[in-house]
Amino acid sequence: MEFTKGHGTGNDFILLPDPDGLLDLTPALVAALCHRRLGLGADGVLRVVRSAKHPEAAGQAAEAEWFLDYWNADGSGAELCGNGLRVFGRYLLDTGLAAPGPELAVATRAGVVRVRAAGDTLSAGLARPALVGSAEVTLGGLHLPGTIVDCGNPHLVCPVAGLDLAGLDMTRAPGVNPAVFPDGANVEFVASGEPVDGADVSMRMRVYERGSGETLSCGTGACAVAAVALADAGLDRGVAAVAVPGGRLTLTLDDDTCWLAGPAVLVATGDVDPAALAIR
Amino acid sequence: MEFTKGHGTGNDFILLPDPDGLLDLTPALVAALCHRRLGLGADGVLRVVRSAKHPEAAGQAAEAEWFLDYWNADGSGAELCGNGLRVFGRYLLDTGLAAPGPELAVATRAGVVRVRAAGDTLSAGLARPALVGSAEVTLGGLHLPGTIVDCGNPHLVCPVAGLDLAGLDMTRAPGVNPAVFPDGANVEFVASGEPVDGADVSMRMRVYERGSGETLSCGTGACAVAAVALADAGLDRGVAAVAVPGGRLTLTLDDDTCWLAGPAVLVATGDVDPAALAIR
Repeated sequence: MEFTKGHGTGNDFILLPDPDGLLDLTPALVAALCHRRLGLGADGVLRVVRSAKHPEAAGQAAEAEWFLDYWNADGSGAELCGNGLRVFGRYLLDTGLAAPGPELAVATRAGVVRVRAAGDTLSAGLARPALVGSAEVTLGGLHLPGTIVDCGNPHLVCPVAGLDLAGLDMTRAPGVNPAVFPDGANVEFVASGEPVDGADVSMRMRVYERGSGETLSCGTGACAVAAVALADAGLDRGVAAVAVPGGRLTLTLDDDTCWLAGPAVLVATGDVDPAALAIR
Repeated sequence: MEFTKGHGTGNDFILLPDPDGLLDLTPALVAALCHRRLGLGADGVLRVVRSAKHPEAAGQAAEAEWFLDYWNADGSGAELCGNGLRVFGRYLLDTGLAAPGPELAVATRAGVVRVRAAGDTLSAGLARPALVGSAEVTLGGLHLPGTIVDCGNPHLVCPVAGLDLAGLDMTRAPGVNPAVFPDGANVEFVASGEPVDGADVSMRMRVYERGSGETLSCGTGACAVAAVALADAGLDRGVAAVAVPGGRLTLTLDDDTCWLAGPAVLVATGDVDPAALAIR
């Protein structure tokens, strides 16, 4: 089974080219591929399939030739992954499956998403986050207020105020109120960052992702942080620089889109032997 | 750069074929390859180089055609890795670099080591562990006695007595006395296992490796556990079954050797782009 491994600011993915949708991808196979020691290891799988050949994407085929069939590392499904989209775009462009151009349309379970390339930077046009209220998070003995943000998935953006962001112990899941977040939340801890040329605001963040623990980056989490920081600065549109542990993202909020921009890198390519995987 | 990824009971490795020793392998490149998200991800690198072509192994070339040039994930050097040897043997046999036979000799920094293959099982002939004393370990609020074992590297084998082995919190490093272990220790927490046909003793273990944290398996750790369990049973030689989180190992202690046996699997093969790695 052919694969490519790549990452966007440290969110890493296994890309499986499957233009005709012939691969019998199962949750167990995805989980085995993504296992860090018994498999190849990744935060998720990006199957590359022609929209016309996938039942969930056939309706988008006129607009977008390729469908991003995204799977979480545990084999569960997901609508979309911001950094995954950027790596997917890099793959389509580098392999020549998509022609270079000002903008590329990608079919996803959340509808057609636009991707733009400029040198090493890939941008994905995600939905504008919605700020929907306040809630508290607990982390060890800390209690911090946060802003609830809906990016299609639930986020809680929590400024750490005078605390040392790098020193936070994020080996345990932060506690959120299950009445507010019945499906849990991705929690972003944030502090101000160094001023960045061209950015209206600059933030640093660490993120604890539901079901994954702390990760090096989270695309929708960075969108949530940008939306809160811009709102705090009295801006409804603008540019936010967000430093994540895996690199730097630039978020541009316009009327209806949050553009998530940053590097996307393909690291390796090869063949994986499904018979050698620990499929459970 | 060509690579193969494989594992032995969940200890995973990147194999780099370099028969003529031409690869400019540096600590920074090894660390970048082994990075779980920005690279390929592994517990270590096994460079496959002809003994005659490597300055550290030329003296072993008459006995062993291939040298296991082993590197830890952080880019530091190491003499030997038990599970790495088993995966190395699998690679030599599967690729045809070594002819199948009853026994294969591998050059290592710890001298020539014998490897045996029987079906899916690969065995490596490691040095007999030496039981050298007693020391205490702390883990959270726990204080447990343990046996100090020298396997070439330092181990502390600690029975958990009435505690639940699976329930131990191993997210933090266990505490050992720096006066006893100036370079730290690999700590094995052990409990009795189900009886296993053909084994004199059966144990379950979890291991915290110096500088790596909890891992799915540790070959020399399993040797240490086997030596202690056999000694506790009054046996100077014998067979120990040791269940690790990543699978099952069988240790056979004879007069001068501890045979470490278990599965060794090659999962994927391909090309990695050094220019795409985060080399620091």
